[in-house]
Amino acid sequence: MKLGRLVKTKRIFPLPRVYQLLEPGPVLLVTTAYKGKSNIMTQSWHMMMEFEPPLVGCLISGRNSSFEALVATKECVLNIPEEHLARQVVGIGNCSGRKLDKFRKFKLTAQPASKVEPPLIEECFANLECRVVDTRMVNKYNLFVLEVIKAWAEPAKKDPHTLHHRGKGLFMVAGKTIRLPSRKK
Amino acid sequence: MKLGRLVKTKRIFPLPRVYQLLEPGPVLLVTTAYKGKSNIMTQSWHMMMEFEPPLVGCLISGRNSSFEALVATKECVLNIPEEHLARQVVGIGNCSGRKLDKFRKFKLTAQPASKVEPPLIEECFANLECRVVDTRMVNKYNLFVLEVIKAWAEPAKKDPHTLHHRGKGLFMVAGKTIRLPSRKK
Repeated sequence: MKLGRLVKTKRIFPLPRVYQLLEPGPVLLVTTAYKGKSNIMTQSWHMMMEFEPPLVGCLISGRNSSFEALVATKECVLNIPEEHLARQVVGIGNCSGRKLDKFRKFKLTAQPASKVEPPLIEECFANLECRVVDTRMVNKYNLFVLEVIKAWAEPAKKDPHTLHHRGKGLFMVAGKTIRLPSRKK
Repeated sequence: MKLGRLVKTKRIFPLPRVYQLLEPGPVLLVTTAYKGKSNIMTQSWHMMMEFEPPLVGCLISGRNSSFEALVATKECVLNIPEEHLARQVVGIGNCSGRKLDKFRKFKLTAQPASKVEPPLIEECFANLECRVVDTRMVNKYNLFVLEVIKAWAEPAKKDPHTLHHRGKGLFMVAGKTIRLPSRKK
């Protein structure tokens, strides 16, 4: 694992606005740390569950070694990659962290998080430090309820080119943003 | 409610591929039917929970009249709109079906579904007929687990221009699709 310094282009991102990062449905890179080792998995099955504090439902199959880490440590970071990381996103999803160091293999930089043990991925434009707050749906659905306790994002990033999984190696890349008058969050 | 005939451009969509429609995180229009009246709500907090049978987690706040309908009838349809319906998507999210007929107000066409009472929205390129299969997370999180029991989509629609909510009237519109070699679903 390559350790990087805190990137100066990132700033604290307000927790009440975290939903604006996750609602569009981007593919995530989830980092965990367990038994002295950090790991990464690619993840698309997630949803917002509450605005404040921001709660995120996150489904992680028991076949992933990240499942074991999350059950044991109750901590993870949701990192949001963009199009330029598409090869890494697929590569990370196609191998297991049981036998290799994914940070090294995919040339990603681990930054220390502020409130949890798992590292942030520097190359992602946003990073959400999370704690597991409810495990009652894990047995039946592998569904973890996470609370985002600290969030980071590049403030200059207005329209991120997030990836959206369409299955079998297909990804939709975020296009233009339109604005309509709305009274809603 | 304006009743339309079954549109000839739509075909049965295979249930094991439903995840390919929902994983990218599109805004949905959820239809319900209760006490002889159909209703529509705009919804973004959803996620895939199982491939087969396709299970979808769907969070619907108790403030919506659709919540009451879903609790009582345990049926809904998830309709996936595209960019050309953006004004309707926002409008539907900004008013309540308690006092008006949203099909009429937003000039949308209701088609009969095949397995559930709530109608399909003809103008949406895909429609997923759903039954509620688990309500244990409703009390705490307003989270319904839905099973998709019948799915419809326009077969010609290769890269739909789905809408992805970014908050406060901002929507990302689905951009290009890229393909990478992957061994995963």
